[in-house]
This record gives sequence, C-alpha cells and structure tokens, in this order.
Amino acid sequence: MLGTEQKRRSSLAEQTAHQLVEMIQKNEYKPGEKIPTEMELAEKLNVSRSTVREAVKQLAARNVLVIQRGRGTYVAKHPGRVKDDPLGLEYVQDKKKLFADLLSVRMVLEPWIAEEAARNASERDVEVIRQLCDEVEALILRGESHIAQDVKLHTAIARSTKNMVAPLLVPIINRSVSLFGELSNNALGQETIETHREISDAIARHDPAAARRAMEAHIVFNRDNISLILSEDQLRPGE
Amino acid sequence: MLGTEQKRRSSLAEQTAHQLVEMIQKNEYKPGEKIPTEMELAEKLNVSRSTVREAVKQLAARNVLVIQRGRGTYVAKHPGRVKDDPLGLEYVQDKKKLFADLLSVRMVLEPWIAEEAARNASERDVEVIRQLCDEVEALILRGESHIAQDVKLHTAIARSTKNMVAPLLVPIINRSVSLFGELSNNALGQETIETHREISDAIARHDPAAARRAMEAHIVFNRDNISLILSEDQLRPGE
Repeated sequence: MLGTEQKRRSSLAEQTAHQLVEMIQKNEYKPGEKIPTEMELAEKLNVSRSTVREAVKQLAARNVLVIQRGRGTYVAKHPGRVKDDPLGLEYVQDKKKLFADLLSVRMVLEPWIAEEAARNASERDVEVIRQLCDEVEALILRGESHIAQDVKLHTAIARSTKNMVAPLLVPIINRSVSLFGELSNNALGQETIETHREISDAIARHDPAAARRAMEAHIVFNRDNISLILSEDQLRPGE
Repeated sequence: MLGTEQKRRSSLAEQTAHQLVEMIQKNEYKPGEKIPTEMELAEKLNVSRSTVREAVKQLAARNVLVIQRGRGTYVAKHPGRVKDDPLGLEYVQDKKKLFADLLSVRMVLEPWIAEEAARNASERDVEVIRQLCDEVEALILRGESHIAQDVKLHTAIARSTKNMVAPLLVPIINRSVSLFGELSNNALGQETIETHREISDAIARHDPAAARRAMEAHIVFNRDNISLILSEDQLRPGE
C-alpha cells in the first residue's frame, strides 16, 4: 500500500501531467521542442521539483515527452503515438489466422489508399516512393531483408493521400509483411519488385483506377503465394 | 549518466523482460493468468529478485503485465494492446481535418465490416448488438452522452466479422464519434437511432448488401450533418 504522503504526491503528479498535456495540446509546447527545466516548470505550475519529475516520467512512459539525458526534456515528435505494435499482435497465438485477417483488412484499405495517393501525391511524394521502391528492389536482389523498407514504402504511399490517419494505420496492418516475410523472401522477390513498380508508376501518372488495380494485384499475389508456401487452406481469408 | 552497475542491471532486466515475453508468446503464461512470484521467477531465470522486479515494471509499462498490489502479477488480458488513443490523435491540432480524415477511413472500413458481420454473426453476436442498440437509444432519449456505448456497438459489429484485426481498429477510428459527438448529440439523435437499427436488422437477417448500405448511410449521414452544424466546407472529405 502507498502511504498517505506518497498518494498525495502521486495525484499531484497526475494533475501536473494533465496540465502539461493541455499545454502541449494548446501548442504552447510544440512537437519536437524542448520544454522548460524542472525548476522552471515547478515555479510556473507552483509544485515541487519532485512532482514535476514524476509527471515528466509518466508522460515519457506514455510517449508524450522524451527525456534526453544531459540535454533536457522534449515534446515527442508525435506525442502519444505508440509505435511498434500498439494492438499487441505479436502476442496472438494463431499466426496464420492473424496473417489472413491482416491481409483482409489490407485488401480493404490499401487499394483505396493507392487510389487517393494517385489523386493527391506531389512531385516530392512520387520521388520518395520511387526511391523506396529502388531500395526495396536492391535489398531483394542482394537477398537481404526488405521488410523495414517495404513497410516504409507502403507508409509513404499512405502519406501521399494527405489523409492524416491512413499513414498511422499502414505500419500497424503491414505487420503481415513481417509475419511471413522472411519465409517468402526468395519466392516472392521478383513479383514484389514488379507489383511495387506498377503501383508507383500509376501514382506517378496520377491514375487512381490503375493504382487501385495494381495494389489489389500486389496484395492478392502476396496472399495467394504465402498460402501456397504454407500449403494451408485456412490461410485464405473468407471473401 | 548511469553508473556501470546500474547499466549492467538494466540490460539484465531487459533480457529478463524479453524472456518473460517469449514465455507469454509460447503460452506458458496465458492472458489473464497469474505469473509466479518474484522469488520463484528469480530462481527459475537465475537472476536477482531486483532484476525480476525491474523487468516486471518494464512489461507493466508496456501493458504486457498487470501488477495488482497485494494480489500478485498477472498477464494482461490483451498483452501489449494500448487502449485509449495509440495513434496520439488527441494531440492533433487541426481537429476538423482529423474528423474528416477519420470519417474517410471509416467510410472505407466500416461498410465492409457491416457486410462481413452480416455474413458471420452468431445468434449471440446479434443479441449483443441489439442490446447495445437499445442502450444507445435509451441514452440518446434521456439526453445523456451515448459516445462510449456507441463505440462499443461499432466494436461489437466488428467483433462479429470474426476477423481478429477489425475490432481492434474500430475503437481507434471511431474517435471521430467523440470529437464532435457532444456537439451533435441532439441534432443527430433520432437519425442515429434509426440508422443503427437498420444496420443491426440487416446483420440479424444476414443480408450483407443491406448491412453495407445501412452502414454507408449511417456514416454519410453523420458526416453531412456535422459538417452542416460546423458550417465549414473543409469538413467534407474529398472523395
């Protein structure tokens, strides 16, 4: 059990954390910027330094602040965003069903994303997409893992939609790439290169229908081939 | 700077945390179950009790373990899942654009979800959906906030698809409900009740096309009315 003194301080720290969150939401402290020192904040918010320290720790655990030892405390570049599996998918036992279900969701979202990307991509977006296409291709040809760059490519496509939610969802649902990615590296290499090129070419010439079709082909191709490799019918998501 | 001794212990704790994660992934310790005591784990993993304590703390911060004071430590019911805004949407400055973009994503995902729910919902699923429909209706008629139950209803529909990813995404993208939900409570009440009924009726009679149409109508209706209330053209997502 916490002592009374500890409890009081903990709830004060929570209040202080809440105040800091509000200041960040009001853009008083901006993403990526340094916040004032412990001492300055303690004075400003009229609490003790140890309360500020506890509040800052709580917000660091929630990815809102980043503590850089010896340099100070910063607002995270993307406050509150949990990278790296916020849905806890790595703890799912039935990996084959998870893979099939992720692909079903990708099959709904990503063709729409490709279409919107073809509508809204800037010159610069197209450059970034082409660059990532090249990087994925080079990694496949060298027989190295292309998973991280593959997810970056799909995220860059989502970013060029200009929808702010799509690029946040893509890394989450693209965990299907890494689930069986290593397994399929060689078998799917050439086709991955070609379908990626088709998607980025369609986006580059701002052809939404072609971008949608190319993305559909890319995902269907992945699904069917992995399912063949694993020789398991249950991998095929119900349609 | 951390001292050498502290560094050594911290990396040992990380290794221990990793070992615990692997045991959970292998289902040695199951979701919701109690794990052995600090002393038992220290013996089993051949580390000190303070290393175990630090590892457990790290995993609690990552929502993998739940420490219940005086009762012991449990594997989380959904290990690693971050509830409550894992995308950090509450820190987005442009709430109107966020609202429009969330609705665009819902417009892609949720009609498909309704369709799949109509295909795969069990008797029990239909009961739960109808029950939540009733609860949302009662709250609206009493003039109380229906946001939490509204999100539960949409999540229950997603759960009846039997796709394991869909019900994890729905609470995230349904933050659009709470963004302007209170604002529109009265204006949209009757229509929300009716469109929810149409969706659940279509699911109950296992009619995928009707379920899709009803969900589309529900989301379009919400989008158009909120945009009317706010009288801002930029709210309308580009289609």
